[in-house]
Amino acid sequence: MSGSLTVVGLGPGEARYLTPAAQVALDAATDLIGYGPYVERVPPREGQLRHATDNRVEVERARHALELAAAGRRVAVVSGGDPGVFAMAAAVFEALEAGDPSWRALPITVEPGITAMLAAAARAGAPLGGDFCAISLSDNLKPWEVVTKRLRAVLEADFVISLYNPISKARPWQLGEALALAAEIRAAQTPVIFARAIGRPDERLRIMTLGEAVVAASSADMATLVMIGASGTRLIDRDGEAPFVYTPRSVASSPCATSQGRT
Amino acid sequence: MSGSLTVVGLGPGEARYLTPAAQVALDAATDLIGYGPYVERVPPREGQLRHATDNRVEVERARHALELAAAGRRVAVVSGGDPGVFAMAAAVFEALEAGDPSWRALPITVEPGITAMLAAAARAGAPLGGDFCAISLSDNLKPWEVVTKRLRAVLEADFVISLYNPISKARPWQLGEALALAAEIRAAQTPVIFARAIGRPDERLRIMTLGEAVVAASSADMATLVMIGASGTRLIDRDGEAPFVYTPRSVASSPCATSQGRT
Repeated sequence: MSGSLTVVGLGPGEARYLTPAAQVALDAATDLIGYGPYVERVPPREGQLRHATDNRVEVERARHALELAAAGRRVAVVSGGDPGVFAMAAAVFEALEAGDPSWRALPITVEPGITAMLAAAARAGAPLGGDFCAISLSDNLKPWEVVTKRLRAVLEADFVISLYNPISKARPWQLGEALALAAEIRAAQTPVIFARAIGRPDERLRIMTLGEAVVAASSADMATLVMIGASGTRLIDRDGEAPFVYTPRSVASSPCATSQGRT
Repeated sequence: MSGSLTVVGLGPGEARYLTPAAQVALDAATDLIGYGPYVERVPPREGQLRHATDNRVEVERARHALELAAAGRRVAVVSGGDPGVFAMAAAVFEALEAGDPSWRALPITVEPGITAMLAAAARAGAPLGGDFCAISLSDNLKPWEVVTKRLRAVLEADFVISLYNPISKARPWQLGEALALAAEIRAAQTPVIFARAIGRPDERLRIMTLGEAVVAASSADMATLVMIGASGTRLIDRDGEAPFVYTPRSVASSPCATSQGRT
């Protein structure tokens, strides 16, 4: 069995964010597998097969990739951002765990990429300057009560919070509810970032207050990364340009919600 | 004023993890500023000045970088990993906020990089498959009580937890205490990863149980990223090779500590 499988992070979109290691993995692949828009990001190459599939069939796609690798193909499973962050890597290992035991002898590797949270933070300034977390708002794979319990925990403990998969046509209300929960615990003036398609030609960064974000929730979409600042997160204003958003590294006092000023 | 400042993420170490965008920023710089070992990672170039400084002088270094940019230099502040994650970006914005108002007119950008958490996760499998957080264990800039309150919150809410700055000569006991706290809340069999210098020639990945990690805490060092699995995180064993570590994307039941099996 000479096949192999690599899960490759394409980063935010443009080639200048793709690591050389990920490029090497793409170049070496006989087969590319992934959600259509991600496969389309990779320039076609003669002799390289492309298997573009729909969204939300991750484990089937992962199983197909493992079957191809077991048949001797050099397979690259492509993911946007980092493949380990709410993307294809976990699906591949789920399929591996449940699949043919012989698959475990395959060389399986993961090539990291710049995830949306890091791309959005870099464009805004340094909002991740303190402790931070990432939560998927999708309740396709976990109950909504789990999402809100986790959200409440990190809101009260004063983490900067990145929300992945914030909204879709099938999940229209979750982001609004999450932001309303945040507004119960954090000050209305807390900076919130809506970062859409960062690192792509149509990128758009919006900086607003938490109060404004609650109202604007429905203007986000699947390509948006939503970031909620901590109590220390603040703006540096600039003439004629968007402010920078940053979170100081120092924390002086208790991080509990009860000690924060509400405005 | 024609100067500029870019905070550049060098990624985990080797050039194959440096994004082309970060490389462009390094190539364009007249001056490199950073902690010595990071400046040393960038191949010297004739005509490019190198300002290597000690660790733990981040804001002085940031102020110096802004002064050089204000004087017309094209400055690259270099950081390991991602500059926005417990690195130089927040220090630059702190110095900007406190400094000469004219500095705010400078072009200031941040180039993201692969942070240690993503590099470690990719090497181990897909441990970040669920919701996750990152906490700096350094109590130089925040009280230890804040660290433990935050840790307790994310342990109880069942996040995968990455610990940055886990241990140093000046802070020898914090990692042991953090892991002992984790062992009060999570099962002793929970997978823990000690990922040292991933992406560098001397990289070392150790996979152990939480029970073992409590005992092994003092074998970590400043270059180690420690990752504590969630209740669902598990291993996929392989013949003659290290197991993969992954966290399934699905969560079936309550994430509260009280609902978890203790072993």
